[in-house]
Amino acid sequence: MIGANKNEHLVISADPDHPANLICSLCKNFYTNGWVTGTGGGISIRDKPNNLIYLAPSGVQKERMLPENIFVKHFDHQDQYVRVPQGLKPSACTPLFLSSYNLRDAGSCIHTHSQAAVMVSLLHGAEFRISNIEQIKALPKFNSEGKKIGYMDFHDELIIPIIENTPFEEDLTGALQEAIKKYPGTTAVLVRRHGIYVWGEDVWKAKVYNEAIDYLLELAVKMYGVGIPTTCGIGEEKQYLKNLQN
Amino acid sequence: MIGANKNEHLVISADPDHPANLICSLCKNFYTNGWVTGTGGGISIRDKPNNLIYLAPSGVQKERMLPENIFVKHFDHQDQYVRVPQGLKPSACTPLFLSSYNLRDAGSCIHTHSQAAVMVSLLHGAEFRISNIEQIKALPKFNSEGKKIGYMDFHDELIIPIIENTPFEEDLTGALQEAIKKYPGTTAVLVRRHGIYVWGEDVWKAKVYNEAIDYLLELAVKMYGVGIPTTCGIGEEKQYLKNLQN
Amino acid sequence: MIGANKNEHLVISADPDHPANLICSLCKNFYTNGWVTGTGGGISIRDKPNNLIYLAPSGVQKERMLPENIFVKHFDHQDQYVRVPQGLKPSACTPLFLSSYNLRDAGSCIHTHSQAAVMVSLLHGAEFRISNIEQIKALPKFNSEGKKIGYMDFHDELIIPIIENTPFEEDLTGALQEAIKKYPGTTAVLVRRHGIYVWGEDVWKAKVYNEAIDYLLELAVKMYGVGIPTTCGIGEEKQYLKNLQN
Amino acid sequence: MIGANKNEHLVISADPDHPANLICSLCKNFYTNGWVTGTGGGISIRDKPNNLIYLAPSGVQKERMLPENIFVKHFDHQDQYVRVPQGLKPSACTPLFLSSYNLRDAGSCIHTHSQAAVMVSLLHGAEFRISNIEQIKALPKFNSEGKKIGYMDFHDELIIPIIENTPFEEDLTGALQEAIKKYPGTTAVLVRRHGIYVWGEDVWKAKVYNEAIDYLLELAVKMYGVGIPTTCGIGEEKQYLKNLQN
Repeated sequence: MIGANKNEHLVISADPDHPANLICSLCKNFYTNGWVTGTGGGISIRDKPNNLIYLAPSGVQKERMLPENIFVKHFDHQDQYVRVPQGLKPSACTPLFLSSYNLRDAGSCIHTHSQAAVMVSLLHGAEFRISNIEQIKALPKFNSEGKKIGYMDFHDELIIPIIENTPFEEDLTGALQEAIKKYPGTTAVLVRRHGIYVWGEDVWKAKVYNEAIDYLLELAVKMYGVGIPTTCGIGEEKQYLKNLQN
Repeated sequence: MIGANKNEHLVISADPDHPANLICSLCKNFYTNGWVTGTGGGISIRDKPNNLIYLAPSGVQKERMLPENIFVKHFDHQDQYVRVPQGLKPSACTPLFLSSYNLRDAGSCIHTHSQAAVMVSLLHGAEFRISNIEQIKALPKFNSEGKKIGYMDFHDELIIPIIENTPFEEDLTGALQEAIKKYPGTTAVLVRRHGIYVWGEDVWKAKVYNEAIDYLLELAVKMYGVGIPTTCGIGEEKQYLKNLQN
Repeated sequence: MIGANKNEHLVISADPDHPANLICSLCKNFYTNGWVTGTGGGISIRDKPNNLIYLAPSGVQKERMLPENIFVKHFDHQDQYVRVPQGLKPSACTPLFLSSYNLRDAGSCIHTHSQAAVMVSLLHGAEFRISNIEQIKALPKFNSEGKKIGYMDFHDELIIPIIENTPFEEDLTGALQEAIKKYPGTTAVLVRRHGIYVWGEDVWKAKVYNEAIDYLLELAVKMYGVGIPTTCGIGEEKQYLKNLQN
Repeated sequence: MIGANKNEHLVISADPDHPANLICSLCKNFYTNGWVTGTGGGISIRDKPNNLIYLAPSGVQKERMLPENIFVKHFDHQDQYVRVPQGLKPSACTPLFLSSYNLRDAGSCIHTHSQAAVMVSLLHGAEFRISNIEQIKALPKFNSEGKKIGYMDFHDELIIPIIENTPFEEDLTGALQEAIKKYPGTTAVLVRRHGIYVWGEDVWKAKVYNEAIDYLLELAVKMYGVGIPTTCGIGEEKQYLKNLQN
């Protein structure tokens, strides 16, 4: 599976928006946000015009990654690599990233170990649900075939499935694919006691969706702290509060 | 409403304090503070000498915005644009920003999705009130016509109205204008489960007011956590505490 | 009191450790830490060899301050300025900074609106006390005349007096001076519902003391959250815990 | 013990990955993370090929440290220094760093005053235990002789011993060495009311282990806040929750 360190030209570019450069700059941004602490997490970007898939390597400090560390696959031959960085192993997240490409035609997929995601997975059951928060409007709305038809409304209930973690990351693939199929309306899957996978039609959409979802997860933990359920109806918040305010 | 991509000169300047540059640099600052996560929030600056209004576009990542992404209106012809960036949509916040200019002669208006603002809107009713905190002194005092007459005192009670959110942001305009008229003493309006609008006589004042208010909102959430009401009288804090301290 | 904008040479230097430059770079650092939000807080540095006192101005955004914004006094003529920046007002903190110089021979004094300081002032009475935390060892030990004789020990109890806030900052001077005299062992004074003043024998000591104290204040708020008093004896923590751990 | 300020060449290098440069850049990173506030904490890197040990000095602001501030020892003559920076004192952590080199053949050792570490030491008894969290997989697995045999599994229980603090940091050496011997499976030792020591086979491993452990400590404090024990079995979380969620 792993060939020679060839095709250097696929990852070396002066364009800051080239996938290999973007993976590195976005991972620095994720590190600052505490999402990829201790080599955790990862990201993949799909270059649709050239039919290529770029993947961050396994076990590398995400904030110190370089373009030459990036793996590349051809979309039509997903069982092999067209570029393998020397001395590095492919990420165990690879089949999960590919699932979002193959099942939802995503253009990028982000995986983080966000603590808000882990906390929400401890506080919620098989699904995370939240509604009536403005930030929900940053998230996409899909039809029953998983095709994007616009953006969610303020009153819409965001539902993100939570799958159980497995000892080996690649073994999550089955459960993740099942969740993607069962929830055509979602653009993310939470993994209990682990983190989250978020995808989008391109890298910027994936980044924005991941940010918006993490904001909602963080808010959900705070709401739990004061006792307000995330699906609480508007105007019903006060009945849950233990301390009186003006 | 949307004309050609003309009047490039209105947004291109080497001066870091030019409104188009300031909108970009301040949005980076807001992003770092977690106020404009996932394209949320926005800002408008009014150039009073030239009678122009600068507006951040809709749905753009705020920390990656460029001066050429900025919309411009003439103050006297608010129903049209004198500059429209290619491929971008005007922000749905536009009528809200304009309301602060028209009703209070503001020079800049900031909108954030601050989580402290959302939390306070869940914990409080029709108004957020806080008093006896030094940071209040950074906020302006107005007479009953909404004219600034100085700064608030330490003992003054800061009152910020909380309006209910609407599915479409532009539909907030009516309630926001009503709140501005009903509360001549405020320089901000909270939107429940959404965020906050803060304005000031110029961009720096708006920035400082927004920071000072967000500090107070964040503090209010912490005070709620230990059970002390935000309007608690000086010396009465201890009666609310569940844990004894020295 | 306010003379012409003369003596520019006192604040313009290529040396990053010149007091006028340090005030600016440290204020940026403080802004990042959330200590001088919304123009709050301030800092003064005393240039002992040249017998000068440098002071940040009032009401300026601390992270955007420039060397030319700095006020300068001669130590022997504290009732006047040898340099006044154009268009700016002296800080209301000035008499408080001077108190630390005159009563304790300090070389620098820092004032912040740290939220941890405000929270601790709400949770504690006339004094903040904490002991048996390693970070205490970063703080100075004084004899009964307020002369530094070394550093605190792990088991020493740090005691910081808390004075009541006043509507005008300069009116704190009396209470602050009284606290300084009553507590020769302290290098800081908390102001209830306001913030903290911390001084040190030079600017670096003041910075380190302020950081160490803020760390302890932040920790104290967290300890309160789980019910452990800040003066809890070693080994007695568990009796206060509501949730059982392994 | 302290010789002349010789052997400057040992600490001056244009290579950013030279130990003297790395100590400085990593300490900046640690400062940003709040781990070395107020001169607290430290780091040592062992240069195995050249048989040298690099040590950060005592009492210096960690984010402002320079390569010329670094102490150097020869591994075979640990009772003396081959380089002593002028005007600085060796760190009291030195014997603790050396313990990890001598007992576990570590290549680097990091000491922080992380507040999460202090909080966990207040909430837990003689050991900190956590299991069933993905981030655990970033940590090394050792055999009963303390030899690394791979990485921990998701279901493995991470056990970090907690030793009691002593008034003088060097007096921790005995208890730390005892803990290292008693827990061949650990790569870290917590010090109650003080912080943590983390080591690894090289500097990057030590950094990653420290990050991963701090993530888990921070998560543990949050789990305590909602009442879920860190060793809670998968699927048993809900029975500990006081507030109901969907």
